[in-house]
Amino acid sequence: MREPAKQGEHCVIGRDVVFGENVTLGHNCVIEDHVRIGADCYIDSNTIIRGGVTLGDGALVGANCLLGECGADFRGDPRHQELPLTIGEKALIRSGSILYGGSVIGDHFQTGHQVTIREKTEIGNHVSVGTLSDIQGNCRLGHYVRLHSNVHIGQLSVVDDFVWIYPYVVLTNDPTPPSSDFAGVHVHSFAIVATGAIIMPGLDLGQDCLIGAGAIVTRSVEPYAVAVGNPARVISNVRKVRNRVTGEPVYPWREHFSRYMPWEGTEFDAWYAALPAEEKTRYTLRDLQE
Amino acid sequence: MREPAKQGEHCVIGRDVVFGENVTLGHNCVIEDHVRIGADCYIDSNTIIRGGVTLGDGALVGANCLLGECGADFRGDPRHQELPLTIGEKALIRSGSILYGGSVIGDHFQTGHQVTIREKTEIGNHVSVGTLSDIQGNCRLGHYVRLHSNVHIGQLSVVDDFVWIYPYVVLTNDPTPPSSDFAGVHVHSFAIVATGAIIMPGLDLGQDCLIGAGAIVTRSVEPYAVAVGNPARVISNVRKVRNRVTGEPVYPWREHFSRYMPWEGTEFDAWYAALPAEEKTRYTLRDLQE
Amino acid sequence: MREPAKQGEHCVIGRDVVFGENVTLGHNCVIEDHVRIGADCYIDSNTIIRGGVTLGDGALVGANCLLGECGADFRGDPRHQELPLTIGEKALIRSGSILYGGSVIGDHFQTGHQVTIREKTEIGNHVSVGTLSDIQGNCRLGHYVRLHSNVHIGQLSVVDDFVWIYPYVVLTNDPTPPSSDFAGVHVHSFAIVATGAIIMPGLDLGQDCLIGAGAIVTRSVEPYAVAVGNPARVISNVRKVRNRVTGEPVYPWREHFSRYMPWEGTEFDAWYAALPAEEKTRYTLRDLQE
Repeated sequence: MREPAKQGEHCVIGRDVVFGENVTLGHNCVIEDHVRIGADCYIDSNTIIRGGVTLGDGALVGANCLLGECGADFRGDPRHQELPLTIGEKALIRSGSILYGGSVIGDHFQTGHQVTIREKTEIGNHVSVGTLSDIQGNCRLGHYVRLHSNVHIGQLSVVDDFVWIYPYVVLTNDPTPPSSDFAGVHVHSFAIVATGAIIMPGLDLGQDCLIGAGAIVTRSVEPYAVAVGNPARVISNVRKVRNRVTGEPVYPWREHFSRYMPWEGTEFDAWYAALPAEEKTRYTLRDLQE
Repeated sequence: MREPAKQGEHCVIGRDVVFGENVTLGHNCVIEDHVRIGADCYIDSNTIIRGGVTLGDGALVGANCLLGECGADFRGDPRHQELPLTIGEKALIRSGSILYGGSVIGDHFQTGHQVTIREKTEIGNHVSVGTLSDIQGNCRLGHYVRLHSNVHIGQLSVVDDFVWIYPYVVLTNDPTPPSSDFAGVHVHSFAIVATGAIIMPGLDLGQDCLIGAGAIVTRSVEPYAVAVGNPARVISNVRKVRNRVTGEPVYPWREHFSRYMPWEGTEFDAWYAALPAEEKTRYTLRDLQE
Repeated sequence: MREPAKQGEHCVIGRDVVFGENVTLGHNCVIEDHVRIGADCYIDSNTIIRGGVTLGDGALVGANCLLGECGADFRGDPRHQELPLTIGEKALIRSGSILYGGSVIGDHFQTGHQVTIREKTEIGNHVSVGTLSDIQGNCRLGHYVRLHSNVHIGQLSVVDDFVWIYPYVVLTNDPTPPSSDFAGVHVHSFAIVATGAIIMPGLDLGQDCLIGAGAIVTRSVEPYAVAVGNPARVISNVRKVRNRVTGEPVYPWREHFSRYMPWEGTEFDAWYAALPAEEKTRYTLRDLQE
């Protein structure tokens, strides 16, 4: 065990804790047993890291966070065992967030405040999860997925790469509540789900589709379709949507927008064409022409 | 005052605090004056328990919780007095939850994370309140009520036994906002309110009714009715709803589902018939035939 | 630096911190460098106040709060500098709330629990922000604005004086998500936005208008109009809305309701007529007759 380069007052550090170089802890931090913290990490005050957590190099963890939280019966259950939580490099986890043990999260992960991520969640690289979002566990998020504030991802959901989900969206999973016959939603690559949409259990939202704000989606939506209303109806194709001011087309968005994306500074097609074949398989991209 | 069997670092314990046998405190806990904690409880790090709280045996309280929170003007108000909060046996209160003083909560209570429960809330036994749910106080929840994540229960709401409420549902209470003429919603036994439904003030949701996802409910709903849409319309009877895969009927759900329920392992009718007469009166069950 | 009149255990206080008379700190508080705390303040346990915060006299700050939070790259960014956060007199900030540096907030400010307020937010006097509300920054709230629980205010929003916004309302800002062409919503004075309404980017909600629960608003709404549905349609004028019990008119609400308002105890017209001319300009009130 290397000591932190610097730590605040009243920290409590358990056994078998390994710190990389240049780690700083705030005040009142609790680091439990069997934790691995990479180099150049900053852990802010009042944060608790439970046994079994591995945090990659360059992480920033805000105040009042709880990493590696235990399941339902935590301390009272004699069967309790540490569930490993692995977080990749350069994470930015904002204050008040709670991440359970039993998940694997990629590099460049970012959260807002007061986020909850339950166990058995698999998250790719460059994913952002907004303030107050609630990922219920037992689900999978691809690379470059961006969840805005207060998104609810039900168990068994699958969200492919490059998907954008906006505030107060819910991916549901119980077709006849209450039941045990859960069926997750599958959101395909490049889809956009606008504010307040609710997606019924087991549906597919096709690649590059656009779900309008407040839509209650009761049937699967085809790729490139625009669906709005309660219940949602397909009213258009994304290629027909125009910027209100400029009149220019705006979808598929990957042809017009690149912020936070790996093709920032170039174009999507050029970026994708230049990927080595073995890297192309990293992304869940299928035929990109309609 | 018995000492905790075990406590972490930097805890602060007030006067007239009584611990049962085998209580464990994490680090940095603050237990204020006049608190009663039952046997076999675990209180995790950074949790604050204010004066006047009584916690039953076998409770697990997660990190960063605040039990017995004071009302509006808390410390600055010279009229401030401790408001007792009583929580029954075997509670599981997950991290980040805030429960005000001035409420009474039954046995086997369970919360998710970051829950808020205001004063003058009366909660029965075996109730579960999901992550980020916000119970505004001055309301009543029966036995075996299950609120999923991010449910908003307005003041004056009454929720009877065996009700299921799903994420982002709101029970409103002000017919002509802003006003002081509040009227609470009454959700009757066995009703199901699906994701994102909003219920207008003062309405009754009848026993065993099913409110669809995203419904904006502007009139009371009869028992056994299915209501969907904005504004909500009754479109069917719950007995006509079928499991999409098996084609089997699924409602009333108590005839087909028993997880978390007292008739788990038997059937509802058998369980109910076998209840002693004096126990039957514990539940708000009326004529269960349509 | 004056010492706090009273402080709990394990507090950490930085350099160049100035306390007014009669300040009390709870346990485990962290007050960083360059903080100004006015007289008669109470800061509850586990709260962190970062560098650059100025808190007016008579503030009550609940437990587990974080005032002056840093932006995206906080501690890891060598360019990090303290962003001043200024909060006026008599604030009541409830537990778990996170307020970023870089905002200016008026007197008599009040929050619920777990509120998030990002940087570059300008807030007037007598504003209340409910539990779990999320103000995304770069926006402006006038005087006497009241946000209920779980309201989401997108960047670039402008909310004028005396506006009421109810739970799960979202003011959106991206007309063609994802894009960088943000356009904020402007909610004019005295408007009421009921539960769960979603307002599309760049729209105006006119003075005294009433947006119904669950409305998906896709066009600007005229003053005094009542809009409901998905998509929202104007169905009436607020002057035609009656109290269901008494049959009395209830809107414009300022003529019938005064709780929390400066005309409490008198009438709006009398209060407004008696304002000195130079004070009238403080409010964003235009022609108040239809």
